[in-house]
Amino acid sequence: MRSPTPARTLATHLSEVVPGDDVTLMGHVHRRRELARVAFLIIRDRTGLAQVVLRPEEVPDGGLPPEETVVRISGIASANAQAPGGREVTAPEIELLSEPARPPVVELWRPSLEAALPTLLDNAAVTWRHLTQRAKWDIAAASLRGFRQTLDRAGFTEVQTPKLVDSATESGANVFPVDFFGREAFLAQSPQFYKQQLVGVFERVYEIGPVFRAEPHDTVRHLAQYVSLDVEFGFIQSHRDVLALLGEVLRGMLENIRTESVDSLSLLNVALPVIPDEIPTIHFRDALRRVGAPDDEPDLSPAHERALGNWAKEEFGSDVLAVEGYPMSKRPFYTHPQPDDERWSNSFDLLFRGLELVTGGQRLHRHSEYVAAIEARGESPEAYEAYLQAFAHGMPPHGGFAIGLERWVARLIEAANVREVALFPRDLHRLTP
Amino acid sequence: MRSPTPARTLATHLSEVVPGDDVTLMGHVHRRRELARVAFLIIRDRTGLAQVVLRPEEVPDGGLPPEETVVRISGIASANAQAPGGREVTAPEIELLSEPARPPVVELWRPSLEAALPTLLDNAAVTWRHLTQRAKWDIAAASLRGFRQTLDRAGFTEVQTPKLVDSATESGANVFPVDFFGREAFLAQSPQFYKQQLVGVFERVYEIGPVFRAEPHDTVRHLAQYVSLDVEFGFIQSHRDVLALLGEVLRGMLENIRTESVDSLSLLNVALPVIPDEIPTIHFRDALRRVGAPDDEPDLSPAHERALGNWAKEEFGSDVLAVEGYPMSKRPFYTHPQPDDERWSNSFDLLFRGLELVTGGQRLHRHSEYVAAIEARGESPEAYEAYLQAFAHGMPPHGGFAIGLERWVARLIEAANVREVALFPRDLHRLTP
Repeated sequence: MRSPTPARTLATHLSEVVPGDDVTLMGHVHRRRELARVAFLIIRDRTGLAQVVLRPEEVPDGGLPPEETVVRISGIASANAQAPGGREVTAPEIELLSEPARPPVVELWRPSLEAALPTLLDNAAVTWRHLTQRAKWDIAAASLRGFRQTLDRAGFTEVQTPKLVDSATESGANVFPVDFFGREAFLAQSPQFYKQQLVGVFERVYEIGPVFRAEPHDTVRHLAQYVSLDVEFGFIQSHRDVLALLGEVLRGMLENIRTESVDSLSLLNVALPVIPDEIPTIHFRDALRRVGAPDDEPDLSPAHERALGNWAKEEFGSDVLAVEGYPMSKRPFYTHPQPDDERWSNSFDLLFRGLELVTGGQRLHRHSEYVAAIEARGESPEAYEAYLQAFAHGMPPHGGFAIGLERWVARLIEAANVREVALFPRDLHRLTP
Repeated sequence: MRSPTPARTLATHLSEVVPGDDVTLMGHVHRRRELARVAFLIIRDRTGLAQVVLRPEEVPDGGLPPEETVVRISGIASANAQAPGGREVTAPEIELLSEPARPPVVELWRPSLEAALPTLLDNAAVTWRHLTQRAKWDIAAASLRGFRQTLDRAGFTEVQTPKLVDSATESGANVFPVDFFGREAFLAQSPQFYKQQLVGVFERVYEIGPVFRAEPHDTVRHLAQYVSLDVEFGFIQSHRDVLALLGEVLRGMLENIRTESVDSLSLLNVALPVIPDEIPTIHFRDALRRVGAPDDEPDLSPAHERALGNWAKEEFGSDVLAVEGYPMSKRPFYTHPQPDDERWSNSFDLLFRGLELVTGGQRLHRHSEYVAAIEARGESPEAYEAYLQAFAHGMPPHGGFAIGLERWVARLIEAANVREVALFPRDLHRLTP
């Protein structure tokens, strides 16, 4: 029988241990260094790093375990102003909890991770261990908590909807076909139809889950699977209520990052954006004029979006800008038109630092409007029977939005490519790891 | 311009309004009743029901709006000891927010929903509006929050992993093939491999998300897509640490239901189960003897599980029982054997009221053990290259478990079929609504 070891001390808690006390660390060997008169092991656990100091005679016969080996260190907490948190562990006994680790493809202990993107992605299980990589996902996870907390407080119900559907949600393109017990099914491109139906049940719903786009273009902004943060709620006056809630949600996400991800923000040197209480809003028609585009341009180009982002920053000190009123012809059939001019829509895109981050708006809510909108596309309302049932039986005015998690985090930390912030990204060329 | 209406009052907040004050309700018409001398509208919103009383001359010319129509009611809060919460709304003005609703396939205002399961499922968008249906999902949503809160407090990181994978996670059977840009991919049966790899990064991870099983059997317990609550964590001694965490998580889920779903529990007449601080545990070998099965039986039958559930209730007053040590031959290759007898495993099933709810255990964590286990199955370790990378570069002893949300809720509320508690279930025969 082993004698009982003292309870594990996490790296960031080592600073609270009284010098002279026994202490047990567990984690990966982050770095080993053998100098002539002293050796060091830096141990990495889920909270951070801790330093272990060995005299030459304390180094095991085979030498120090290689980096990434998992160890248990039993030793004595000792004061050292140079060590992280003012403490280090001396007189250590080292027990290997894994086999000695093979050297990773990149040196994880170096402060910055210089690997090219394919190396990063091909070795994701290991490269995510790097402190700056881990910090990126820490910010993603804090964003998810902030999103849920804000909506839970506002009386929203979390839902979970089908990812296997019998037809393409919004358009026939860009769907992945699935062999569903011999029938053709598709992966859901969004929970749009389901979240709307559930507004009839719970009034206010959200869902965080994977959505799938068979995106044939290889860009820095598109993934074949991404995490969608979906919101839909009833009893709104217009898309402006949706935009106001979006602002509240984004501020809630940022507040949670600010309080829970202090170390990650500092490690990544991230300055959090300003989301004003009232998000500056410009009509699509006026946005075209401002960027000098023709009046009949149906969409904003990336250059236009950048110009508008700069204008919002200079004019309003805001990192976000809502462009409302996009032409109905460019929006999905369930979009609510602008009541005083039906060429425009009660919908918006939110630009975050000059890039489209969120699409939202008010939806149609009357059954007869849906039938007309579907027929105007030359389609049969029967193809949408299950969806239209909700409207036939009474639905409140409603709207919602969807935030792409990877785009949010990438823009926040100014990553050049969304693949840097997806744990195991999927795209046109990538189905592993 | 309309004059500004007073802010909306939610149904359950009506009891707090001072009699005589103006009040605005918004919701679905739950029930309309016109009697000779008085008429009633019951309004349903996300919080509950509120009563509106009309004198005959206040009834609109066309009569009261039909059930499920969405309305805004402006009137006066009035005391009435017979009304829910001691208040009703009188002198109402009724504004229709939807078109008059078509009658639903079932009368949603009746206290109990007598529809057969196919009717319930075929009309899910509407039948979920019934108060007892809504209460079921309310308990599911409270379970999700309790799960996350417990794990967030314990230093876990939420992760989101790929649902599109290049090979079957645990076995070649029961996977849905996907056409992934012309290549064959599969829908993930579980996040097992990913959550393990991420233990090397974050030590403690959880994921709530859809998993997919091409289950060819039509049973009351199987769905083609279900919500899996997955946990994995490092630095454990054995599966007993995993079981202890599972107990903590289940108690956290129940505590959240108890505090947040008071009305739903009472509506469904649910008695919450007892999860003892230490979950009673029996070895598989002893479980076989207790139920009178032969020593070489490789698994427990449903009848065995029921008998063991009854025994746990009588003997320990517990609604749960862990059966540990299942034969290695019946467990997946990554299962850790029982150190003193390698025929058995360091894994368990948790029986909840005599039905299997959770599978969990300790996993292998040394690279050489994985290579041996995969070769022993006659497979090539190269097929698992990306997964095995994590182990080659050092992984702590670890384990985890997965809870199926629908099974949990169904068992909790004693629903006969998991389809009753999935919002839009998918199975062998069902791909819509």
